[in-house]
Amino acid sequence: MWCFRGFAVVSSVRSVFCLKSLSAARPAPPSIVHRSRIFYSHCVAREGGMAAADPEKEALLLPLRKSVQEQGEVVRSMKEAGKPQLEVQEALQELKKRKKLLETKEKELYPPEETLNRSDLEDLVKRRFIYGPSFSIYGGYTGLYDFGPMGCAMKANFLSAWRQHFVLEEGMLEIDSTILTPEPVLRASGHVERFSDFMVKDLKTGDCYRADHLLTQHLEKLAADPKVTPEKKAEYEGVVRQADNYGQSELGELFVKYDIRAPLTGNEVSAPLEFNLMFSTTIGPGNGISGFLRPETAQGIFVNFKRLLEFNSGRLPFAGAQIGKAFRNEISPRSGLLRVREFEMAEIEHFVDPNKKNDCKKFSTVSDLKVLLYSASDQMDGRSPREVPLGEAVSSGLIANETLGYFIGRIHLFLLKMGVAKDKLRFRQHLSNEMAHYACDCWDAECKTTYGWVECVGCADRSCYDLTRHSQTTKTELTAKVDLPEPRTIDCVEVVPDKASIGKQFKRDSKVIIEALASLSPEAILSLEEEIKNGSYDLTINDQTFTLLPPMISSIKKYQKTIHVIDVVPSVIEPSFGIGRILYAILEHNFRKREGDEMRNYLSLPPIISPVGCSVLPLSGNNQFDPFVKTIADGLRERGVSLKIDDSSGSIGKRYARTDEVAIPFGITIDFDTLKSNTATLRERDSMQQIRAKVEVLPDLVQALVQGRLTWSQVVEKYPLFMGQESTK
Amino acid sequence: MWCFRGFAVVSSVRSVFCLKSLSAARPAPPSIVHRSRIFYSHCVAREGGMAAADPEKEALLLPLRKSVQEQGEVVRSMKEAGKPQLEVQEALQELKKRKKLLETKEKELYPPEETLNRSDLEDLVKRRFIYGPSFSIYGGYTGLYDFGPMGCAMKANFLSAWRQHFVLEEGMLEIDSTILTPEPVLRASGHVERFSDFMVKDLKTGDCYRADHLLTQHLEKLAADPKVTPEKKAEYEGVVRQADNYGQSELGELFVKYDIRAPLTGNEVSAPLEFNLMFSTTIGPGNGISGFLRPETAQGIFVNFKRLLEFNSGRLPFAGAQIGKAFRNEISPRSGLLRVREFEMAEIEHFVDPNKKNDCKKFSTVSDLKVLLYSASDQMDGRSPREVPLGEAVSSGLIANETLGYFIGRIHLFLLKMGVAKDKLRFRQHLSNEMAHYACDCWDAECKTTYGWVECVGCADRSCYDLTRHSQTTKTELTAKVDLPEPRTIDCVEVVPDKASIGKQFKRDSKVIIEALASLSPEAILSLEEEIKNGSYDLTINDQTFTLLPPMISSIKKYQKTIHVIDVVPSVIEPSFGIGRILYAILEHNFRKREGDEMRNYLSLPPIISPVGCSVLPLSGNNQFDPFVKTIADGLRERGVSLKIDDSSGSIGKRYARTDEVAIPFGITIDFDTLKSNTATLRERDSMQQIRAKVEVLPDLVQALVQGRLTWSQVVEKYPLFMGQESTK
Repeated sequence: MWCFRGFAVVSSVRSVFCLKSLSAARPAPPSIVHRSRIFYSHCVAREGGMAAADPEKEALLLPLRKSVQEQGEVVRSMKEAGKPQLEVQEALQELKKRKKLLETKEKELYPPEETLNRSDLEDLVKRRFIYGPSFSIYGGYTGLYDFGPMGCAMKANFLSAWRQHFVLEEGMLEIDSTILTPEPVLRASGHVERFSDFMVKDLKTGDCYRADHLLTQHLEKLAADPKVTPEKKAEYEGVVRQADNYGQSELGELFVKYDIRAPLTGNEVSAPLEFNLMFSTTIGPGNGISGFLRPETAQGIFVNFKRLLEFNSGRLPFAGAQIGKAFRNEISPRSGLLRVREFEMAEIEHFVDPNKKNDCKKFSTVSDLKVLLYSASDQMDGRSPREVPLGEAVSSGLIANETLGYFIGRIHLFLLKMGVAKDKLRFRQHLSNEMAHYACDCWDAECKTTYGWVECVGCADRSCYDLTRHSQTTKTELTAKVDLPEPRTIDCVEVVPDKASIGKQFKRDSKVIIEALASLSPEAILSLEEEIKNGSYDLTINDQTFTLLPPMISSIKKYQKTIHVIDVVPSVIEPSFGIGRILYAILEHNFRKREGDEMRNYLSLPPIISPVGCSVLPLSGNNQFDPFVKTIADGLRERGVSLKIDDSSGSIGKRYARTDEVAIPFGITIDFDTLKSNTATLRERDSMQQIRAKVEVLPDLVQALVQGRLTWSQVVEKYPLFMGQESTK
Repeated sequence: MWCFRGFAVVSSVRSVFCLKSLSAARPAPPSIVHRSRIFYSHCVAREGGMAAADPEKEALLLPLRKSVQEQGEVVRSMKEAGKPQLEVQEALQELKKRKKLLETKEKELYPPEETLNRSDLEDLVKRRFIYGPSFSIYGGYTGLYDFGPMGCAMKANFLSAWRQHFVLEEGMLEIDSTILTPEPVLRASGHVERFSDFMVKDLKTGDCYRADHLLTQHLEKLAADPKVTPEKKAEYEGVVRQADNYGQSELGELFVKYDIRAPLTGNEVSAPLEFNLMFSTTIGPGNGISGFLRPETAQGIFVNFKRLLEFNSGRLPFAGAQIGKAFRNEISPRSGLLRVREFEMAEIEHFVDPNKKNDCKKFSTVSDLKVLLYSASDQMDGRSPREVPLGEAVSSGLIANETLGYFIGRIHLFLLKMGVAKDKLRFRQHLSNEMAHYACDCWDAECKTTYGWVECVGCADRSCYDLTRHSQTTKTELTAKVDLPEPRTIDCVEVVPDKASIGKQFKRDSKVIIEALASLSPEAILSLEEEIKNGSYDLTINDQTFTLLPPMISSIKKYQKTIHVIDVVPSVIEPSFGIGRILYAILEHNFRKREGDEMRNYLSLPPIISPVGCSVLPLSGNNQFDPFVKTIADGLRERGVSLKIDDSSGSIGKRYARTDEVAIPFGITIDFDTLKSNTATLRERDSMQQIRAKVEVLPDLVQALVQGRLTWSQVVEKYPLFMGQESTK
């Protein structure tokens, strides 16, 4: 449910482009959905605490850090003093600007250690059909990608690991709800009204552009003109800083003022239009029902809350989970898998008693885990992210509660297991003005890529927002019963009507009157008691007034009751995974070049998500190898290890290179020694080491390696290293 | 890709309703897409060869059988004689009628052995949230279903087994293409033009009805009137028989003739309208691109053919596979999961050299497999389905080729492994007029349910239709190179132009002229040779004519060439699985009642698709049980066995009943003996037998049972049966 936008204040100013947003140009009134946007910045911030600090460089950075810190203090004190939002905004923009300066300098002084050549990776992705643009024989359509056999297997393995790590290990309730979603559901959730961006149209060609992108591009170009005056430059930069905060009319005025035109044609553009990012369709024949393709999987969990609660025997806490496609009609898709129109999500909605968020049984299992946290205050003070044990982060109040901390820990562990590089993963806390008004705390797991830090997983404490909205819209009670810490005694008051007397007077209306009396509030009963004493009480039901007289009320019963449970609307902790983005980050983090003459590229994916578990390579096309290939292949299949038999004619070295490119972690080669000794070689991808073992034991060995029950170094300890085929390439 | 409709001629006449159809009221011209429809009949035909034949009953059936057989002969001979299609149709309708009589009698004489109470199953499905109507708190929307935790896990296990059985074991190339599909793609595939049904609208309320359904209902009602004359009755029945073959105008006339009105309101209805069953949407901002939600996953494989072929090093055969959602905007969804608007499919497109369909290496692995086949001729002759070994079915020509036979075998094995009852599974061959004009042979795997025989998997030899269409539309060559059985010598003829002379005369046009000369057909070259001898040759390129003179042609080269490979458009064998339908059939086939006083319902799903592998039940809430529960639960999780801890307060018997209801095949109970002896009991669902074993060995034991490496009877041999807790219920 990473999706709605607030006011993005991020570590870098213009280097932000949001993936998903609600157009929230002005502070949204509290009744309006107003979520934090997902975004990713182009900034390549220095990894806090990762690179060793150089005193000389640090001296140069000190004044910049101080400047950020000072402005951070200004913002903080303004907020504490309750200054008007507009003033706070202005101060925040200044803070952003200072942070940008600091980051630019940091980047200059500490250049990224490793320079990934993205086009090499893209070439590999295309050549080996990990994924590629959809419908390319039809010329291709932006924002749509197909996963090929390798990407599809990698994704399937990833999702299967996700299901194991979250659904099975945590006992979550997974559901599979429909993509087609009727309009009323998404109106209640706020998507119909607010899930939009502003765009402008080329008046001649009809091409569309995102208004804030175009404004920014145009003014950045003007500001870069060497002949521009300092005043003008400052003005342009000021506008650019605000670009994604302007409302529809303000944007329109700016487009007129700066005479902004369509970049490709130079044609005039339309006034900014609100464009809802959901794909709409009609369900059923004829006029049918208006509906949308879901923009997130989360709503499918919320609308099933009652069934899931019942499934869990009415008890809190429990979590719903869902894996599935979601759709966003982006105005301008870009950056490969990072901003697309159709994508896979995996979302968890953990429902918890709002008073028991700090009562997370399993928190102790992650409390010692050190996670790179980039807190809101560190962002505001210009400090770097810090590694903090989660226990400390929760007890110091940095992370709002144990439940949220627990999920941050679980996400951290999961991403590392999937191959995200530890030094390219941070959890960034939303600043207070980025966060939805109903959220208490929100942390994004961000992965560093060549596109900057990319939000891959959102983890928010969303309080009771969605259930409340659906409950209000459908008049359905979406609550759970929770035990009170101790029984509570409450005062009760009740009207006892004289049914005969009422019946005699009001005939067929008496039923509704008796029902209305039973549902009067305690206050109303007390005033009834007062008024009836004075002669009569006027009861109004649906605009009709009935005058009750003293004989019609037998008595007013007053008593005390002890209650043990109350109904609460659960709070929701929501970890939300963008699968395509994570897979892309993993590909970048695992894209390697071999040192040495060949400079071969390969992917060092962990076996758990490698598309194929093992390759089987007969040294040549010799028929004598066939039975061995069959034995090994059957053995691997029986053990659930996916495999690729490569009996092509290339040299073994070339074939290893091909399997390395698609991350196959292990390779078994059948050579002429196999015929004599019934042994074959087993090679590990990253180290390129080989051992030799009996054909019968190899499938078990590989299964244990792929499942992570055995490490390669344990294998090497047991079996002597083998030097051979690789050199025959 | 089970979807398009031809003319359904099925074993029962009106007891058919098609799940998906192209409106093909008249014989489609050969250039029009014209696929066989998916349908399922309400008829509960007798399982051929399954129930023992009773001589007395058979004597009663004999005349009916004979009558069907005779009419079958009539149809056959009419076809052989090449009679006009309309006459053949008429004869086929008569055949249908006779078959219906036969089946009704069969059903009467051999009533179904086991009567499943569908509402009991539906109650279980709802109560335990296996699946349920989507958005029910919003009042629900027809044709949309959500899978709850149990259904979702069952589906995930099913798909994982599918991936293992087909993708991994067969080395298929799985892809994941987008649901959003631009209009040109589905125009090429024929869906835009023909993927529709006829509907009529209530002129006052706007409610829509399927025209053929309404016509049928109305006339069946008229025919059932006891006062109807025999002539009228015959007329009504005649119309009903043709109901799904009428075209738009004929339907309109019939609606007028019989004054058919909206059944709920009695209002007049509109003329029949064609209604395309695809959900349409707009991709991109502004006017965007017209697109649809895919009605099948198959097209995503076809448009990726080139990439997949390249992935397979250019070699045939290979198969693409895809699992994913598909969408059909049904006019009237019905029958639970059987006809819905959003559903999961798993499709395989096996690409094969058209000349090598009988060259299927692995066919021998299924050739002895006996499969219940309901051939077209058996259907026409009124015979029952027969069990035939696949080898025999292919060699006798009943199944068109080995490749198709192989997939039928694999589908058969898979469905049985998933829990489909062997005596409720048959493969029904399409009759020639049901089949798409380009298909050579098509067999549907049908499962018997309380709704009748339901098509669950289509398995068709689709020849080269789709690739040809996409190739023509995109001008992209979608072919593969295949080796010729032996090298072929071909005559070549080539124009050798005098470039200087051409250049001098035609200047900048000379380039296209030289290109045009190089691409002339052999026939054109021979006539050029002839005409140039006579003085000149007129070459026309894009409406422009160039007159070539003898000096411009140096020579006409004639030579022979030996070729070893040719380009072919591959044929496609397509197994296509409807996941929701299969899961529903499996639920019906595995819904059981316990004999005895409690008459408890349970689901006997095979462990491989049971939603949960094992339950863990502490006998009571005693804290002393906790460490044992944890040890066992952790052990199961580590071994990838899903589990459910049920520490609710119910008796053990009640809790077993609850786990039985959701098909949990094994249950481990921790009782007071566990505390003393470190042993716990293991119970098997179907037999309700229990054994007692050490806590440490139980997770391994359960893992082996769930993975099918160990049978319960093997466990019982090793561990003594335990009698105890069950009786404490």
